[in-house]
Amino acid sequence: MTLGLLYSGGKDSTLAAMLLEDFYDVTLMTATFGITDDWTYARDTAESLGFEFERLDLDPDVATEAVETIRADGFPRNGIQLVHQHSLEQLAAVGFDAIADGTRRDDRVPTVSRAQAQSLEDRHDLDYIAPLSGFGRQAVDRLVESTLDVTVGPSEEITRADYEAELRALIAERDGEDAIGSIFPAHEQTHVTGAQDR
Amino acid sequence: MTLGLLYSGGKDSTLAAMLLEDFYDVTLMTATFGITDDWTYARDTAESLGFEFERLDLDPDVATEAVETIRADGFPRNGIQLVHQHSLEQLAAVGFDAIADGTRRDDRVPTVSRAQAQSLEDRHDLDYIAPLSGFGRQAVDRLVESTLDVTVGPSEEITRADYEAELRALIAERDGEDAIGSIFPAHEQTHVTGAQDR
Repeated sequence: MTLGLLYSGGKDSTLAAMLLEDFYDVTLMTATFGITDDWTYARDTAESLGFEFERLDLDPDVATEAVETIRADGFPRNGIQLVHQHSLEQLAAVGFDAIADGTRRDDRVPTVSRAQAQSLEDRHDLDYIAPLSGFGRQAVDRLVESTLDVTVGPSEEITRADYEAELRALIAERDGEDAIGSIFPAHEQTHVTGAQDR
Repeated sequence: MTLGLLYSGGKDSTLAAMLLEDFYDVTLMTATFGITDDWTYARDTAESLGFEFERLDLDPDVATEAVETIRADGFPRNGIQLVHQHSLEQLAAVGFDAIADGTRRDDRVPTVSRAQAQSLEDRHDLDYIAPLSGFGRQAVDRLVESTLDVTVGPSEEITRADYEAELRALIAERDGEDAIGSIFPAHEQTHVTGAQDR
C-alpha cells in the first residue's frame, strides 16, 4: 500500500515515517507555497534517510489567507491550522492509498479531529493515519533521542520546511522583520540530520 | 526502553506490538482474573510471534464489580471500561518504562482519554502509548490483511483472551448461559494465528 506523509524534516514527521515504513510504501511529501526554498532541507533529510521524496505544491491564495488571519489574530495558530488542512486536501488528491502526518497527542496546532479524519477518508477513499497521535510529548522525545540525530535551536535559526518558514517570510515582506518576533513566540525547533543504526 | 503492552491475542493488540517492536523492548502482558485459562491462547500467539510474554494478574474484586455493573446496565460497555482502567493501573505498577494498549481511533470501548493518559504518566513516571489511536477501522483492517494470519468468527466461538471471556464466564455462572446472549451483542472477534513474512 502506498502512503504519502506530510514531511517537514523535523523530528515528529521523521519519527512518523519510521513508524510506518515497515507497513507501507512511504513517500515523504513536503508542502510548499513556492515562497522560499526551505522545502529543499526536508528533501535532503529524506534522501539521507533513504525515503522517497516529492514536493507538494500548495495554493498561494491559501498563504495569503493564512497571513491575513495571522496578522488579524496577532498569533499564528489559526493560520497554521488553515494551511495544514489545505495541505491534507492537496495530499489526498495525489492518489495514495493512505495519507499521514506527524501530529502528536499533545499538539495544540495543527490538530485533526476524528470527524475531520473521517471526512478526509470518506471523500477521498483513503486512510488518514496519525501515527504519533497515541504518543505524548515525553514519549516522542525519548524515541527521538534513541532513534535520530537532531539539531535543536531557536525557531528562527533552524532550517526546516514547516509552514511557519514561508508564512514568516510573507509577513516579514509585508510588515518588516520586526513583526515576526511579536507574532511568532520563540520556541525550539528541530531539524533531523540522520538516523541511528540505519 | 522496556514497554509492556496489554495483549489479548487479537488483531489490534498484535498490530500494536508490531508497530512498537523496532523502538522498544516489548513484553506482551495478558490480563487475567484467574477465572478461565483463556489467557493461555494469548501466550501461545505471543510465543509463535516471538514476543516476550507475561501474565498480568487482576484483582478478582474488580471482576465482581464489573459483572455487577454489566448486569445492572444490561450491556457490557461500562464494565469493560472499568476492567481496562484497572488493567492499565496494574500494568503501570509492573515497572516498565512505557506501557501501551491496542485501542483504536474509532473504538467506543475501552477508551483512554488524553487526561487519563496524562494522569497515568504523571502518577507512575512512565509513557502511556496507544499506537493504534491514529488509525481508523479500515486502516487497521487493511494492515491486518497485509501483515497477519487471523481466524475470524462469532465472539462466543473465538478463543482469545480479552476481558469479555472471563466476564461472560462469571455471568453465565450466576445467571445461566442464556443471559450471555442478551447482554453481549453478537460481534466478530479475531484470533491471530501468525504473522506473514516473519
